[in-house]
Amino acid sequence: VNYAVMMAGGAGTRFWPLSRQTLPKQLLPIGDDQTLLARAIGRVAPLAPAARVLIVTGEAIAAPIAAAFPEVPAANIIAEPLRRNTAPCAAVAAKILLDRDPDAVMALLPADHVIRKEDELRTLLAAAFAVAARSDELLTLGVKPQYPETGYGYIETGDPLDEENSRPYFRVAAFHEKPDAATAQHFLDSGRFLWNAGIFVFRASVFLRAVAAAMPDLAAAVAEIDGCAPPEKIGAALARLYPALAPTSIDHGVMEKVRNILVFPADIGWSDVGSWTALRELHPADPHGNVGQGDFLALDGGENTFYAQGGVAVAVGVEGLIIVHTPDATLVARRDDAQGVKRVFEEFERRGWKKYL
Amino acid sequence: VNYAVMMAGGAGTRFWPLSRQTLPKQLLPIGDDQTLLARAIGRVAPLAPAARVLIVTGEAIAAPIAAAFPEVPAANIIAEPLRRNTAPCAAVAAKILLDRDPDAVMALLPADHVIRKEDELRTLLAAAFAVAARSDELLTLGVKPQYPETGYGYIETGDPLDEENSRPYFRVAAFHEKPDAATAQHFLDSGRFLWNAGIFVFRASVFLRAVAAAMPDLAAAVAEIDGCAPPEKIGAALARLYPALAPTSIDHGVMEKVRNILVFPADIGWSDVGSWTALRELHPADPHGNVGQGDFLALDGGENTFYAQGGVAVAVGVEGLIIVHTPDATLVARRDDAQGVKRVFEEFERRGWKKYL
Repeated sequence: VNYAVMMAGGAGTRFWPLSRQTLPKQLLPIGDDQTLLARAIGRVAPLAPAARVLIVTGEAIAAPIAAAFPEVPAANIIAEPLRRNTAPCAAVAAKILLDRDPDAVMALLPADHVIRKEDELRTLLAAAFAVAARSDELLTLGVKPQYPETGYGYIETGDPLDEENSRPYFRVAAFHEKPDAATAQHFLDSGRFLWNAGIFVFRASVFLRAVAAAMPDLAAAVAEIDGCAPPEKIGAALARLYPALAPTSIDHGVMEKVRNILVFPADIGWSDVGSWTALRELHPADPHGNVGQGDFLALDGGENTFYAQGGVAVAVGVEGLIIVHTPDATLVARRDDAQGVKRVFEEFERRGWKKYL
Repeated sequence: VNYAVMMAGGAGTRFWPLSRQTLPKQLLPIGDDQTLLARAIGRVAPLAPAARVLIVTGEAIAAPIAAAFPEVPAANIIAEPLRRNTAPCAAVAAKILLDRDPDAVMALLPADHVIRKEDELRTLLAAAFAVAARSDELLTLGVKPQYPETGYGYIETGDPLDEENSRPYFRVAAFHEKPDAATAQHFLDSGRFLWNAGIFVFRASVFLRAVAAAMPDLAAAVAEIDGCAPPEKIGAALARLYPALAPTSIDHGVMEKVRNILVFPADIGWSDVGSWTALRELHPADPHGNVGQGDFLALDGGENTFYAQGGVAVAVGVEGLIIVHTPDATLVARRDDAQGVKRVFEEFERRGWKKYL
């Protein structure tokens, strides 16, 4: 049976002041009225309804997530006691699902990305579910690159295989970490490389065998979890096991080390929404290049990016800025300095302005 | 007896989003924790305590003003039904005070300016009260100009008279409207011109005689007001009389047309707080030229002007901007385009965003 595992553990400091310590990016309505997590759950519901959704998140936000998604069974909301990147998250989810359903096939999905072509995503996921169910392969979706991005990992395609759901797929030749600019250009030009969007589909049992081969310590740890136990017992097991786990990504810890991986090239309108500038991909621009979400107004000037929540953001005569309004904080930043937002936190800590974090 | 008449009728659209239709500039805490009106009343209290303060304001804000200043008698809060500039305001106030006290000497004071040297203001007002009480002269305070401002009217000094309270004063040679740049420079260089800050002191009876000579229609209108009548009757009289009054400033309508005016040069740290950029005169700058009121943070960049109410305003890597945060609106404007804020209103009207006005 098919399951969807939502990886919803991110902190999302880059979306301050909209994101806060207890309101990370996946719980924000970015690009849409719904939160990114709600959208992520909704778009796969035809393949895996809420009863078969597992949400893996952090302890600080597990309760608000449970309240926001009453249709997801309480036993399916897994709170990690510490942040340990995606490999432990995926392995814990696989073990829990396997204990509950020996035939579980799971899609592992980041909960804080935007996917505009949802029909195509479902077509590809359905194809991957089908291949995963009948084989001992790990499946992934690789996004067709639009430009030589250096901030993403890449998936190198190998031999073409067949089609499923009318979509071609390939054996994976290799996973590559973030490239330098020249390499990224080479990847783009070759036509054989895809962006690694962190979307995987596999049988839980097959994945756990890969974990046992690539990360035996992690495999031993998750073997101690009884996925059928009540949530408190699972929570206690995670609290005991997590401190000893090394933070490792599923790509680096598992996928780069195993051979049985297939990939579907995906044209799904994907964005990882990495910073405020990503809003420019999610909303149409006015004739002066202003883009935004919520009530905003730009007079003179242009090329500004707005987000207004609970109020209005107005710019007069300014260019190329990110302007964010929330009821208790305003951010104005140069568009090419979207990462500088991180430093705001250090200064707030120094000043004791925790109420704004 | 001495009275203080606060002209508190301004709309203050230039301080949007802090100012709103029912929260004009004089009711804002600019440069200080107190509102400009509270500060204006407080600074003259040693000369004219609250019982002898008359506040002339607009109907929309009379009730909040009455609530904010319970120490000012209800009969002393005069709500103008229409905006008719300062000459009607001054004449109405003079008639009301004269009816209540034939010897009334009144200081006419804008309620939305900043005066940093309050001791010196009181010294000069006390001097002006004394001269006004014993003579048939109109007194004014003229601010010593700091630079060739083209946005203010000027007062040209004539013959020196004497000293009062150790402060010299002069006969006024002429009132001049806002000059062009060359004229303003000439005014500054000559040393004989002062900024017209709209601060006047006179016996009510003497001023009403000047009004009778310069603006007989206005004099005839205010003659119909019974200053000793209950507030509702005064309100009804104003409602009947105001529509026929021409909007006229006290300078243009009266002061430019009469000869019996004396002026005290005033070094009182005066600012008319004409736009957001005035905050730069009211608060110290950090080493990067950032200035502000409320919780604000500037990383990189500089020369920014902040006002944060009910939250924090943060700028990363930007220069020369005005950044204002309120709970339901954010404004970002180029510092040299502070007047552009006015156009925001037109666009808001067009969009039906009245909730933000």
